[in-house]
Amino acid sequence: MSYANERLPREKVFRDPVHNYIYVENQVILDLINTREFQRLRRIKQLGTTSFTFHGAEHTRFGHSLGVYEVAREICDHFQRNYPTKAAGDGLWDDSERLVALCAALLHDIGHGPYSHTFEHIFQTNHEAITVEILTSEETEVNRVLRSVSPEFPEKVASVIQKTYANKQVVQMISSQLDADRMDYLLRDAYYTGVKYGTFDLQRVLRSMKPYQDGIAFDISGKHAVEDFIVSRFQMYQQVYFHPVSRSMEVILDHLLQRAKEIYEAGNGDEDFVPTLLIPFFEHRFSLEDYLNLDDGVFGTYFINWRTANDQILADLSHRFLDRKPLKSVEFDSETATLIPHLRALISDAGYDSHAYTAINNSYDLPYDDAYDPKMKKPLTQIELMRSDGSLVELSQESAIVNAISGKLSGDQRFFFPKEMLIPEDGGINLFQDIFNDFGRYIHNNQLTIPKE
Amino acid sequence: MSYANERLPREKVFRDPVHNYIYVENQVILDLINTREFQRLRRIKQLGTTSFTFHGAEHTRFGHSLGVYEVAREICDHFQRNYPTKAAGDGLWDDSERLVALCAALLHDIGHGPYSHTFEHIFQTNHEAITVEILTSEETEVNRVLRSVSPEFPEKVASVIQKTYANKQVVQMISSQLDADRMDYLLRDAYYTGVKYGTFDLQRVLRSMKPYQDGIAFDISGKHAVEDFIVSRFQMYQQVYFHPVSRSMEVILDHLLQRAKEIYEAGNGDEDFVPTLLIPFFEHRFSLEDYLNLDDGVFGTYFINWRTANDQILADLSHRFLDRKPLKSVEFDSETATLIPHLRALISDAGYDSHAYTAINNSYDLPYDDAYDPKMKKPLTQIELMRSDGSLVELSQESAIVNAISGKLSGDQRFFFPKEMLIPEDGGINLFQDIFNDFGRYIHNNQLTIPKE
Amino acid sequence: MSYANERLPREKVFRDPVHNYIYVENQVILDLINTREFQRLRRIKQLGTTSFTFHGAEHTRFGHSLGVYEVAREICDHFQRNYPTKAAGDGLWDDSERLVALCAALLHDIGHGPYSHTFEHIFQTNHEAITVEILTSEETEVNRVLRSVSPEFPEKVASVIQKTYANKQVVQMISSQLDADRMDYLLRDAYYTGVKYGTFDLQRVLRSMKPYQDGIAFDISGKHAVEDFIVSRFQMYQQVYFHPVSRSMEVILDHLLQRAKEIYEAGNGDEDFVPTLLIPFFEHRFSLEDYLNLDDGVFGTYFINWRTANDQILADLSHRFLDRKPLKSVEFDSETATLIPHLRALISDAGYDSHAYTAINNSYDLPYDDAYDPKMKKPLTQIELMRSDGSLVELSQESAIVNAISGKLSGDQRFFFPKEMLIPEDGGINLFQDIFNDFGRYIHNNQLTIPKE
Amino acid sequence: MSYANERLPREKVFRDPVHNYIYVENQVILDLINTREFQRLRRIKQLGTTSFTFHGAEHTRFGHSLGVYEVAREICDHFQRNYPTKAAGDGLWDDSERLVALCAALLHDIGHGPYSHTFEHIFQTNHEAITVEILTSEETEVNRVLRSVSPEFPEKVASVIQKTYANKQVVQMISSQLDADRMDYLLRDAYYTGVKYGTFDLQRVLRSMKPYQDGIAFDISGKHAVEDFIVSRFQMYQQVYFHPVSRSMEVILDHLLQRAKEIYEAGNGDEDFVPTLLIPFFEHRFSLEDYLNLDDGVFGTYFINWRTANDQILADLSHRFLDRKPLKSVEFDSETATLIPHLRALISDAGYDSHAYTAINNSYDLPYDDAYDPKMKKPLTQIELMRSDGSLVELSQESAIVNAISGKLSGDQRFFFPKEMLIPEDGGINLFQDIFNDFGRYIHNNQLTIPKE
Repeated sequence: MSYANERLPREKVFRDPVHNYIYVENQVILDLINTREFQRLRRIKQLGTTSFTFHGAEHTRFGHSLGVYEVAREICDHFQRNYPTKAAGDGLWDDSERLVALCAALLHDIGHGPYSHTFEHIFQTNHEAITVEILTSEETEVNRVLRSVSPEFPEKVASVIQKTYANKQVVQMISSQLDADRMDYLLRDAYYTGVKYGTFDLQRVLRSMKPYQDGIAFDISGKHAVEDFIVSRFQMYQQVYFHPVSRSMEVILDHLLQRAKEIYEAGNGDEDFVPTLLIPFFEHRFSLEDYLNLDDGVFGTYFINWRTANDQILADLSHRFLDRKPLKSVEFDSETATLIPHLRALISDAGYDSHAYTAINNSYDLPYDDAYDPKMKKPLTQIELMRSDGSLVELSQESAIVNAISGKLSGDQRFFFPKEMLIPEDGGINLFQDIFNDFGRYIHNNQLTIPKE
Repeated sequence: MSYANERLPREKVFRDPVHNYIYVENQVILDLINTREFQRLRRIKQLGTTSFTFHGAEHTRFGHSLGVYEVAREICDHFQRNYPTKAAGDGLWDDSERLVALCAALLHDIGHGPYSHTFEHIFQTNHEAITVEILTSEETEVNRVLRSVSPEFPEKVASVIQKTYANKQVVQMISSQLDADRMDYLLRDAYYTGVKYGTFDLQRVLRSMKPYQDGIAFDISGKHAVEDFIVSRFQMYQQVYFHPVSRSMEVILDHLLQRAKEIYEAGNGDEDFVPTLLIPFFEHRFSLEDYLNLDDGVFGTYFINWRTANDQILADLSHRFLDRKPLKSVEFDSETATLIPHLRALISDAGYDSHAYTAINNSYDLPYDDAYDPKMKKPLTQIELMRSDGSLVELSQESAIVNAISGKLSGDQRFFFPKEMLIPEDGGINLFQDIFNDFGRYIHNNQLTIPKE
Repeated sequence: MSYANERLPREKVFRDPVHNYIYVENQVILDLINTREFQRLRRIKQLGTTSFTFHGAEHTRFGHSLGVYEVAREICDHFQRNYPTKAAGDGLWDDSERLVALCAALLHDIGHGPYSHTFEHIFQTNHEAITVEILTSEETEVNRVLRSVSPEFPEKVASVIQKTYANKQVVQMISSQLDADRMDYLLRDAYYTGVKYGTFDLQRVLRSMKPYQDGIAFDISGKHAVEDFIVSRFQMYQQVYFHPVSRSMEVILDHLLQRAKEIYEAGNGDEDFVPTLLIPFFEHRFSLEDYLNLDDGVFGTYFINWRTANDQILADLSHRFLDRKPLKSVEFDSETATLIPHLRALISDAGYDSHAYTAINNSYDLPYDDAYDPKMKKPLTQIELMRSDGSLVELSQESAIVNAISGKLSGDQRFFFPKEMLIPEDGGINLFQDIFNDFGRYIHNNQLTIPKE
Repeated sequence: MSYANERLPREKVFRDPVHNYIYVENQVILDLINTREFQRLRRIKQLGTTSFTFHGAEHTRFGHSLGVYEVAREICDHFQRNYPTKAAGDGLWDDSERLVALCAALLHDIGHGPYSHTFEHIFQTNHEAITVEILTSEETEVNRVLRSVSPEFPEKVASVIQKTYANKQVVQMISSQLDADRMDYLLRDAYYTGVKYGTFDLQRVLRSMKPYQDGIAFDISGKHAVEDFIVSRFQMYQQVYFHPVSRSMEVILDHLLQRAKEIYEAGNGDEDFVPTLLIPFFEHRFSLEDYLNLDDGVFGTYFINWRTANDQILADLSHRFLDRKPLKSVEFDSETATLIPHLRALISDAGYDSHAYTAINNSYDLPYDDAYDPKMKKPLTQIELMRSDGSLVELSQESAIVNAISGKLSGDQRFFFPKEMLIPEDGGINLFQDIFNDFGRYIHNNQLTIPKE
């Protein structure tokens, strides 16, 4: 029997709190899980700074990756049980696509580094490009496993993740507006944060999925389950992913890494606290090996060292990150944005480096995109509902709720600043009291506001 | 209003996946949570190497500590609602004990370091002594908060944790065979691992608790809920806490730290990979500050560095820990223990340093102790059931199930060795085939076995 | 101590699958639960014919009534803990309103009979009027308990249910667009049906509730929890409460009772099968006692008798109801409604009494009403969100999702007919094949459709 | 394609709160569900009088029967996926046994009537014999469906239920100490009552099951899951099934039916309240048709009628059953049993018919039977654990917990009497006060007790 078809003598399971069990049936999948690159995902939190707000959310990309694999596996089973192809080109499910789908599901996030969003911003990396590199570079263990299936298999899996793979059912199973990735992360993030918003009816959605010529549609009888998924995702963005305190900790992280980089570039860091594993990135000459050496703990270790650095700002930002001292924030809009320079001046007057201690952060998401546009950076096909006669209708045409949030960016832009500007640490008389009083006039109902005379 | 009695204007909540919400009503509690020492618990996994077996179990001591606080808070509420004291010495609940109980609950684990069990073994530290030090040393933020309640308050909280506090209800709420600590960790570890064994009926147990002169008893109507708790705990030990793969990873960690220490002591480590934050421990001269600088990520960072160390064993053990390459293990007993020297010799013959690559590990727990013995290292009072006439009966007298596991150590002793001894990496002919064949003869049904001729 | 303030020596609990425990603290509440009128609710299913579609939904109005009580109790506790009144008229919570609120919550559905909707249609009764009668009529046990609190207490509780009570916080707690009733039934119906749609974050919604001068508002930070509640309720209506199969069984029940009534009025029923307990209703001269004698089982018993009645239609409809043989249905609109007379003619031609075997059923609900209109039959106040400065904003102004479904009736109208018209029982040649063929031309994608030529 | 092999074009599902979905793949199964005899199970509560104690437990035998089917289906899937037979007699799973297994699972309880235990006691019926009759009698719809599979199929299914079927794997799947029936009812009863005891790890137990020559064994790695199942079942008996209040309501029901029968036999019932559907049973001449006409609601309807009967005892017992007025009870043992005649005399003296108002009830269960004894009334094979070398070991040899409750009857015997004997209705002076005082002397800690002088 070829390696591609090698089944384990008996299915192996991983206990998972979200799906109860992750079932592994193929030797290839088990070997991929055991690679060094995949095991590394145990050391990278799924939600970065979110655990500063929702303390339960300490789960890593390892469990999520297994979860996406499991959802994809269940979709394949459902397709094979209910819609197996009878003739090439009939638009039904061809189970010989299973392995490539499962590998792509398992590995879709393998290129993520610690606190990806911030890291990529500071060091100009791209986790998707690195994912492809891990799959296709001959130096990785992942590549060695994939190559053993067939020489072209690594590229094949990569093309699914890049959405250039010919079989659209496989592509949409892994990346679309209702894919295995999103299904797992909503459930998993809801489970670990403890919020209820992210829960939707996974089995009902899975059962509604139907393979057809152009990918995957949803039986119209499952309309409300799909709608519920979209609403859940929308609410998770509003309530969890965009939480101001998590973003505030991300702002601190961003400024902290930026500061460390500047100090390194200026050549005046403390000799004792050399961030060995970060230097290749400071110097813009990192290898894949360097990248794979990073994880959340590496960052934390340098911050512990830096907490007593000579540079006061580096030390203070490290302390704020490690000991959870978030900045405060307020919403603003295009009109009140004009107030920000004045506020920054006040913050400087109160003794803060306004570069290090203030920030603007925009967080927006498209809850559902009803207009496929191939020119977009990341176009995603619309969700199509299938009627009993086989005709299709786009989701937002059928759901008033989805229509209400469709095509509209959702989120806010916030201005971050030290909370001491509003709640002076010392309760008594303060040297800067006038500054604080002036500052406070611009904030009302947690929003930047032009004061009435 | 004094700081001790300062209530938040409106209760503050932390979203928690296990208890749904953690309710904070006192300013003191909120201030303790915001200390540097408490925030540090976010970086120390609750179950150490268990997440190598149960990938979901990535939760930290931070959430557990909040959970113990919450369970204690609910016990106080229940006592105050149903059994408030009417006269001093009536054996009912005196709610002026609430704050000391809540602080002790919150802080009972604050002295834990990364992978405590292993760490304490290698560096001869003691997390309970450190807990007391953190509470009472003037240099900590925790102490500063406690001191603000009253000068003697830090010692008072420490005495609860040390079980010398006069009010036995408070002591037993925090440390006994059915305390807030155990209640939280069973539920939490079950939630995060995804196993079902740890679940018991928290509300039913809480409702059964009754304060009395000598501490806390349980209404006899709640007998089965208490029994279920004991069985759940027993099963969690068997299935989760004593899992051979997690213990195997702990063995690797132990040998790895031991090796690093020996190399340091011998003075021949790589210059590039100096484990700055560990040196005070290698040199047996660490301060509380040094201790508080450690966390799981610090260890991981050194392991990443050491993965390419010159010392082959240090490098390989680091790789095994980071990339999850557990040792294999088998049970043995006093009779088959005699085989171990021969097996170690075979392992040496196959090219392994048998000091670094084999180990014996015993894991035993007393599921329930029905015989209080003050001479024991950690004596715990028995669980007493209260009949409707107020008379008491010890749990194992009433429950055949508890009686069956009462007073008997439960667990096993295992011999750990490289799994390559059983499953040679290369499927074909092997130089060491004879050795492997000999080795395999001693293992049957996952146990060390004296071969029949 | 007066009866009104009599607290149980220790709180009593009822185990409940939805709220875990129902806590009873007052003797009055316990006495109400033990009345004959309240115990009768055990014999009346909460969701009538819905269990024919969702077999798990066999729960009764008894559990729901306890659940509404429990939610109201938790609201009172939250209000008393966080917003206790300090001075009369300050708009905060006055805990002396607790007992009237709890009694109204417990008893709000006490006037329901079996299959209320159908029953009221056939016999022109009104469960709300009967609720008030049960509270205020001296012949009931409920009234005797309430009267023991004070002579005017029965009327006081009744006025809460009738929404004429002065304290708007109490009224809105029991009847409003987000009241204890709706909160319990969504969670309970979701639990028993097994669907996921009805779940929302009860604790989060409860925590958001704030008493104020004009009733109960919701803190704006809980906006998404409130939004989620509205969406959940909308989806439960779409997926569960309006399910066509349940409505079909209700149509059968309606026609069956109608037929029985006509037979009785015509005086030609079978002598053996006299529906003793229904006769007062057939004769429009029923007493409260007669009403309280009815339950689901009484109906079922008569149907079992009627299954072998001489009247073929009565017998067949009884069989269809007992043995779950639903009619089939299709959606229609104002245009396709014109086809119905022709379809009814075809159904007659195929041998069915089209009066007994066809029906039109409209099911519509207002998911959220953003425009309070006191002239409406059952006006409900809008949901108001409270900003941090105390100002209010109506929910649909803040939530695009709620706005999308606000003020618009949601549901459908369906035409019901024997499914044999589409799937002839005998697979072979059929005398009525031409009729069936003609009939089938009008149905496409489960909708009534004007056929293309 | 033959009817036996006819698969639905697409699997059909029933939403179930316990298993989420019940999957139906065969036309035969769907047809069986739609029979009149199976639909009748919707009108028979699973736990009889238990809902008087646990109000949530209003579920019927319909859902349970679907659940047992679903568990059996999952076992078949697991066996076929992991242990498919390769050669006749190899002891592995032969999937051609699937249909007979599924039908037996679905229909195993079809002979149950309302409140079976009591009913069988009064009317000397036997639900197992009736199950076989429903399967094999040509007059039933169930038989017609089974017959369509093949002429001998009804007998085949019946033989599985009677445990005479040749394939022991199929027999043990349906009736053994760890069968699909027990697995479903524990989970379902726990879900509906809301208690936590009944929950065990279904998926883990299922995964441990292994077909072998003599039936079904359990992989030794699943030992603790099996142990947990046994403990859960033990606790459900102690806490739910044997609850004194439910048994008290059963006592009332028993006495009520007995009284009605005696009145009928004496020929002096009220003319108005003839229990038509019960008469065949009073006269010991009932047909299968008569039996199938009974359900919980029929009983309730007669009780409503009898509540105003001329016979005072019949009327009062009806009231007590309908309005939930349980008797009180105390435990006794062989020694204190001697007190009962005296207590009965006191009860008579206080004006009660001691035949109607007192009772003795024993409830015992064997939590686990480690000694298979074919001479027992219902012998059940022991649970066998399979080691990795294929050898077997009986469960209680491996589990101290199971051993502790193995082979020992568990339960109690109680004496039931009017609670007015202890808590006189009128708080003031009472004619019978001396009697009550004497009575109370014999009861201590809820047990019958010989008073100390």
